[in-house]
Amino acid sequence: MAALELAEQITKRIEEGNIEEVKKVLSSVHPSEIAALLQSLHPEERNKVLNTLDTETISKLILELEKEQRREILAALDHEKIAKIVEEMDSDDATDLISELPEDIARIVLGKLTPEEVKDVETLLKYPEDTAGGIMQTELVQVTYDSTVRDAINWIRLIADEVEDIYEIYVTDENDRLLGTVSLKKLILANPMTKVGDIMEPVSVTVTPNVDQEEVANIFKKYDIVSLPVVSEDGRLLGRITADDVIDVITEEASEDMYLFAGMQEYLHPIYTPIITKVKRRTPWLLLTLLGELFIAFVIVHAFKKTLEEVVILAAFMPAIMATGGNVGLQTTTIVVRSLGMQTIRTSQFMQLIIAEIKEGFILGIICGLVAAVIATLINMNEPSVIRLSIAIFVAMVSATIATSFIGVVEPIVLHKLNFDPAAASGPFLTMFNDIFGSIVYLFIAMLIF
Amino acid sequence: MAALELAEQITKRIEEGNIEEVKKVLSSVHPSEIAALLQSLHPEERNKVLNTLDTETISKLILELEKEQRREILAALDHEKIAKIVEEMDSDDATDLISELPEDIARIVLGKLTPEEVKDVETLLKYPEDTAGGIMQTELVQVTYDSTVRDAINWIRLIADEVEDIYEIYVTDENDRLLGTVSLKKLILANPMTKVGDIMEPVSVTVTPNVDQEEVANIFKKYDIVSLPVVSEDGRLLGRITADDVIDVITEEASEDMYLFAGMQEYLHPIYTPIITKVKRRTPWLLLTLLGELFIAFVIVHAFKKTLEEVVILAAFMPAIMATGGNVGLQTTTIVVRSLGMQTIRTSQFMQLIIAEIKEGFILGIICGLVAAVIATLINMNEPSVIRLSIAIFVAMVSATIATSFIGVVEPIVLHKLNFDPAAASGPFLTMFNDIFGSIVYLFIAMLIF
Repeated sequence: MAALELAEQITKRIEEGNIEEVKKVLSSVHPSEIAALLQSLHPEERNKVLNTLDTETISKLILELEKEQRREILAALDHEKIAKIVEEMDSDDATDLISELPEDIARIVLGKLTPEEVKDVETLLKYPEDTAGGIMQTELVQVTYDSTVRDAINWIRLIADEVEDIYEIYVTDENDRLLGTVSLKKLILANPMTKVGDIMEPVSVTVTPNVDQEEVANIFKKYDIVSLPVVSEDGRLLGRITADDVIDVITEEASEDMYLFAGMQEYLHPIYTPIITKVKRRTPWLLLTLLGELFIAFVIVHAFKKTLEEVVILAAFMPAIMATGGNVGLQTTTIVVRSLGMQTIRTSQFMQLIIAEIKEGFILGIICGLVAAVIATLINMNEPSVIRLSIAIFVAMVSATIATSFIGVVEPIVLHKLNFDPAAASGPFLTMFNDIFGSIVYLFIAMLIF
Repeated sequence: MAALELAEQITKRIEEGNIEEVKKVLSSVHPSEIAALLQSLHPEERNKVLNTLDTETISKLILELEKEQRREILAALDHEKIAKIVEEMDSDDATDLISELPEDIARIVLGKLTPEEVKDVETLLKYPEDTAGGIMQTELVQVTYDSTVRDAINWIRLIADEVEDIYEIYVTDENDRLLGTVSLKKLILANPMTKVGDIMEPVSVTVTPNVDQEEVANIFKKYDIVSLPVVSEDGRLLGRITADDVIDVITEEASEDMYLFAGMQEYLHPIYTPIITKVKRRTPWLLLTLLGELFIAFVIVHAFKKTLEEVVILAAFMPAIMATGGNVGLQTTTIVVRSLGMQTIRTSQFMQLIIAEIKEGFILGIICGLVAAVIATLINMNEPSVIRLSIAIFVAMVSATIATSFIGVVEPIVLHKLNFDPAAASGPFLTMFNDIFGSIVYLFIAMLIF
């Protein structure tokens, strides 16, 4: 809650016009807290606060802001200042920032950097943002296997300013091919005249730059490491990925997934964003799912109107069948997506998996169908067609759960085979398909029975 | 895919009865890969593979397994072996494992550890699993401020075996109160006779043991750190949390959220788990939401049957209104949950937020309502009551989106005020409430119009 108290305090100072006091308060606040503060301010207040900050602070917080906000802020800064901000950053962060600039401004900013910085950034710019190459940094400690521990320490002394966090040093041959690593702990305890090649440990895992960032996160999770070397196809050391970047990747992906699930692309401040912008972002997905649901209406009007006219209470149980079918499908998809992610299911077991899930869907359908049929009987005691209604509900429930189990298991498998992220399978579109399917099956069965 | 190839290979060797070959193959495989392998095997095959592994390997992989599997494996091991596995672990992992054992076995295992190990584990057992205290480890390097760099290095040499990963050393006063940290990089470069108190840096952030693990993850993300000291209320150093544990926390929480969202508690292998166990896990939540949806049926039968009998096609558009209302509500909840998480909204702005979201819901309702009304008119051209039907659809759509926007914004705010996780607000129960609300509002409006 400290962040919110800070926001209250700063807003008050700005209202009073006391900018000096704002500057004083913020001088003792961590850049990441200032980033959170900026996101909670009105754009005008935000610009006033930004003006009180030095380049180093801005360089530390700007990548923590939402893309939309960063775009606005960068648009308001001059090239000289942007270049200074970039210079303060590690190569991976500098590359991320430059890749977000309009091309002409990016070129001007690059022109103001040293040749070496330009080379690093241009190398990193080649890799897509969401790959190991896109999140790695080139700052690291590299020594050849015949260096002594003393050489290595002297080398660290020389580049200490440039490489901020060092957890281990990378040992290579003359052609930059990675041979092993030595932890700083081991380096401290070793005899200064020992050759690093003699105390290095084999590298347990490396990645090539094209590996997806989610896979990188999985490797960090599996191997319990805090840094991971990135090597070329022929084993040459290109860079390293550190745990703090991976934590950013994982949390970003989780909140992105959550947002995509609700059909939105990125976070917009709910109060300070113009309403027209917000509505524009939300509408496409709402309309798309609406059209799917209106298709149900179309089918009902053209195929099942007679049935409904005869037994109008059929309509009352449509939501129950659609929702249960949808929920069974959602559960199935969740299980299958997780199994694929954890690799607990082999390709040769897909048929077994499909059969197992359909069996389960069948049993769940019988349970839910019986409950629904009994309650339907109780609700409609006086109805003459109550028995047939209950039978229709039971049969429709079982059919719907079998069908949605089948969709729920096959959809992620197909996405997986096509090399898409199977997680995309769960979500509102699956629900829409389940809705369409559940209602039509139900009314079709009812039509047959009545 | 390597994991799946490994599984194929091992399964084949086991079928051939060639256990020696299994042992040979696995000797060069990383424990985390063996963990993935175990999860994809049939319980019988799994036990055969387990028998080929030494205690050290088992200690490295057992916490990576799903709880259910770990329970089965531990039940099959004798106390002596469990104690040996625990001895190989860091204090945080040892505590996690012991806390999962049945109480009598836990006591026997504790009896086989050294007094110091028992003390560490008993201290850590006091903290709830999902707090900073629950995920911290007691293994760390601590020196007093008046020690020299040489003293510190000698101390590291003494405890090097016990403390595996060292990123920084913690500088305290005589009463264990944390004063600052020195990175290993700085320690390597410093003069051996310098006092650590002179080169230490202030600690930018600490947590107390009762802080929630999600908050710990947020701190790692914000501050870009790889280890975080845990201190008591009066500032005494108790332990540290490392980035690899935080990565585990974040990925676990993400997959737990996904599972909870589908109403399941934990992952069960979809092929090897008995079907009765799987059905038991999935049923409660399905029945709960089913009852909610059957309530809709109850209300329709008792309050709106007449209206439906008069205009049976009203039923055809129920799914569209329920789904759109639900989707608008889901979007709103997502925005609000994220804003609360990012702290971009202050308590004093809650009223503004509610008004902003209702406004948006109103506009989205008008857009979706117009689309639905136009399509309803096109579908039912020949119907005499088509105009009134379209009006009912339009008004119901707008009312439903306003209502679900209101629920969508208020529900997470209330959960937040009550100190619950606002993320719990999105999910199938919200959908159920939206369904109930959407259908009843729709039919009520239709009743008024017809």
